[in-house]
Amino acid sequence: MAQKPSIPKGTRDFGPAEMTGRNYIFQVVRNVFRKYGYQCIETPSIENLGTLLGKYGEEGDKLLFKVLNSGDCFSGIEFSDYCCTDAEGNPRFNSNGLSLKVCEKGLRYDLTVPFARFVVQHQNEISFPFKRYQIQPVWRADRPQKGRYREFYQCDVDVIGSKSLLNELELVQIVDDVFGQMGIRVCIKINNRKILSGLAEVSGQPDKLIDITVAIDKIDKIGIDAVKQELVEKGLTAQAIALIEPVLTLSGTTQEKIARMRELLAASETGMKGLEEVETLFGLIAEAGIRQPVELDLSLARGLNYYTGAIFEVKALDFAIGSICGGGRYDDLTGIFGLPNMSGVGISFGADRIYDVLKGLDLFPKDGAAAATVLFTNMGDREIAYALPIAAGLRAGGVACEVYPDNTKLKKQFEYADRKGIPYLAIVGDQEVSDGTVTLKNLASGEQQSVPKGELLSCFRQA
Amino acid sequence: MAQKPSIPKGTRDFGPAEMTGRNYIFQVVRNVFRKYGYQCIETPSIENLGTLLGKYGEEGDKLLFKVLNSGDCFSGIEFSDYCCTDAEGNPRFNSNGLSLKVCEKGLRYDLTVPFARFVVQHQNEISFPFKRYQIQPVWRADRPQKGRYREFYQCDVDVIGSKSLLNELELVQIVDDVFGQMGIRVCIKINNRKILSGLAEVSGQPDKLIDITVAIDKIDKIGIDAVKQELVEKGLTAQAIALIEPVLTLSGTTQEKIARMRELLAASETGMKGLEEVETLFGLIAEAGIRQPVELDLSLARGLNYYTGAIFEVKALDFAIGSICGGGRYDDLTGIFGLPNMSGVGISFGADRIYDVLKGLDLFPKDGAAAATVLFTNMGDREIAYALPIAAGLRAGGVACEVYPDNTKLKKQFEYADRKGIPYLAIVGDQEVSDGTVTLKNLASGEQQSVPKGELLSCFRQA
Repeated sequence: MAQKPSIPKGTRDFGPAEMTGRNYIFQVVRNVFRKYGYQCIETPSIENLGTLLGKYGEEGDKLLFKVLNSGDCFSGIEFSDYCCTDAEGNPRFNSNGLSLKVCEKGLRYDLTVPFARFVVQHQNEISFPFKRYQIQPVWRADRPQKGRYREFYQCDVDVIGSKSLLNELELVQIVDDVFGQMGIRVCIKINNRKILSGLAEVSGQPDKLIDITVAIDKIDKIGIDAVKQELVEKGLTAQAIALIEPVLTLSGTTQEKIARMRELLAASETGMKGLEEVETLFGLIAEAGIRQPVELDLSLARGLNYYTGAIFEVKALDFAIGSICGGGRYDDLTGIFGLPNMSGVGISFGADRIYDVLKGLDLFPKDGAAAATVLFTNMGDREIAYALPIAAGLRAGGVACEVYPDNTKLKKQFEYADRKGIPYLAIVGDQEVSDGTVTLKNLASGEQQSVPKGELLSCFRQA
Repeated sequence: MAQKPSIPKGTRDFGPAEMTGRNYIFQVVRNVFRKYGYQCIETPSIENLGTLLGKYGEEGDKLLFKVLNSGDCFSGIEFSDYCCTDAEGNPRFNSNGLSLKVCEKGLRYDLTVPFARFVVQHQNEISFPFKRYQIQPVWRADRPQKGRYREFYQCDVDVIGSKSLLNELELVQIVDDVFGQMGIRVCIKINNRKILSGLAEVSGQPDKLIDITVAIDKIDKIGIDAVKQELVEKGLTAQAIALIEPVLTLSGTTQEKIARMRELLAASETGMKGLEEVETLFGLIAEAGIRQPVELDLSLARGLNYYTGAIFEVKALDFAIGSICGGGRYDDLTGIFGLPNMSGVGISFGADRIYDVLKGLDLFPKDGAAAATVLFTNMGDREIAYALPIAAGLRAGGVACEVYPDNTKLKKQFEYADRKGIPYLAIVGDQEVSDGTVTLKNLASGEQQSVPKGELLSCFRQA
């Protein structure tokens, strides 16, 4: 009996049209990364769970996809170790213990932790500063919803082993370059974690830095009042909130914002260091001639706890969607794997959202979507024997072409070309074979011309 | 405490040098596939286990990586359903039942079954014949050993919805094209499953076709005598074996082999059909001017049960390794998902083995391995402010370049360029800033010249 085919929820098939768009995105980011000297690495989809657990917070641990040990993985297990009894005294599985016992591996959750693991494991083969990019899928057992998938690609670019702010500048240049090439107008928002640390300090509650960061991170989604409410719930004093609130809505030029913050954070060494970094970075950005607007956004927080310096977020100006790119500097991501004091900075491009923006704004390039440039008709064995070397000649000249495999009605062959978006038909019948020609038909205009077979390639070369 | 980082056995990290080689392979096959009008698709890494189970034989089922259901997957399970007692009366887990209960999904084992699932699921959006390629990783819980991994890439190209032998020809052209471009000399071996069916028929044991196929498939590894031994064990009569054996060692031209087989298989309609197909295909191949040798190898069997017509295998001539590419025609791969009578043919390129061949024969292109063409030195803020727009100009002109991020000793910066294989150093010091020049140093020859900053791009344009 036939199974009705389906795929797991939160996953997707990508057909030819979608893949053309996706490959365009990968190609643009890859070419830009390479132009700045970043090198490609790939890590395994499956990592040891020990590498992944505890790196993404409690919520993240729950979202890891675990892979069952191969072989007869339950059989060797001591039964009594993984049983417990429920309230009524009935035997139950000890779920968490059992799943960790039978699953030693998990699917990669992001590209950053595997990158940190890679750097530590291969530190003797790497020359630092190490500039790498990585374009691979990641998996999260999140509740699937519009725009959120359980398998999706990340395009990460990082430099590790250098504290210079020129690296931050370079990431801004890369963002500018990528979205400039795609024709997407964006705003690049920058903040610095040290400024947030300074705020927590001068508000008298330095221990609340993570709570402050997590709350502020939601400002775009829930608004300033809900953020304040959350800060109250997390135990921040009214005084502290009164100090933080105006910062989140501070307006003016970058220089004005920095000047105002200098007054506010004067007592915090960390805060002042953050302001100095921001000022230097904005100076470099002004010199480098970045074309897209760059803004110091003091309400930008980013959720991840490992950031310690600059943080970035990029928003499309003409399309309503969350951030399409983000990242920041981390001072000790590799420490947990045994390599301390290895500062790095990186950003991640979200291929799925960029796809939605390009599609929504109709910015995908119009060429390149066609499967091939020419379809040779199939009108029988003799005609095919005549057409095959002509098709081979086109391909050798760099023109993608197909030979229709079956000798069916011409109408069907026309329709095939049409549906596949092939712009030219090379009609090869009895007459063409006798004359040594090909009838080339432009399917958009309907025009057709007889071309000597030796001149067919030049028809496409000049186009 | 720091964890010592490692990755699961059978998986690999790929550093920049390996990725340069791997990306070269993917690029060559992708460009050739596109030149023939094949379109890219991608399917999810995770499929429902129902899609995968029972498609790869009993052995294959055991090699599937299962993914644990997300959430608290053991907690809702009725305890008594998955317990049993061992010989001593101790409670034990019912391993197989439990693993299928807590795992509804698995990692893709190959690209062919997901492709069949894709075709059936999207049949109304596809225009047939459907020519697709797919380059993605697959996972198998095989015992890891040299050259065998638990995660590896396949590069598949298939056309489905056409019975024409022109499709088989096209795959041979693609093989010829791919390995021609890579400079790998190969032998393309072809056989036809219908000939093997015919042999089973005329030997009086048509029910033994799979046993015969599986045994013959091992001839390269275990030799003719062991194959005969296995046929005996599988219950083939001495008479049948006496009929099959000479076929496996048949020599002569393709025409001679076909003529000899025509006598042998005269009583089998299927066998005669197979011979006709082979004769037609070799005729097309002769006309198409395939450059690499193509051989009718009657001992070629291929392990997979779904093949029904032509089967292919490609071996490198100058490097001892198994087949580097293989495939065949299948008449009913989509039937199990509810779409019968959809004949297709495809081949799969093994990226890992091709990598080993290219490396072993030193055939990787020498250019393209460098991360960037130029490294700008960092001798201080003023020099960097001068260098940044020059570097931006090079990049805009298509020359990949880096600016060293830290103001460290020049020796360290030289070494960085050297280790990364960057061929040119652009030295920018006090003097260059004053003169409006850059000192360009060729690191291989040691030569250096002073170049006006506006002319730097042209130094690389003409090279």
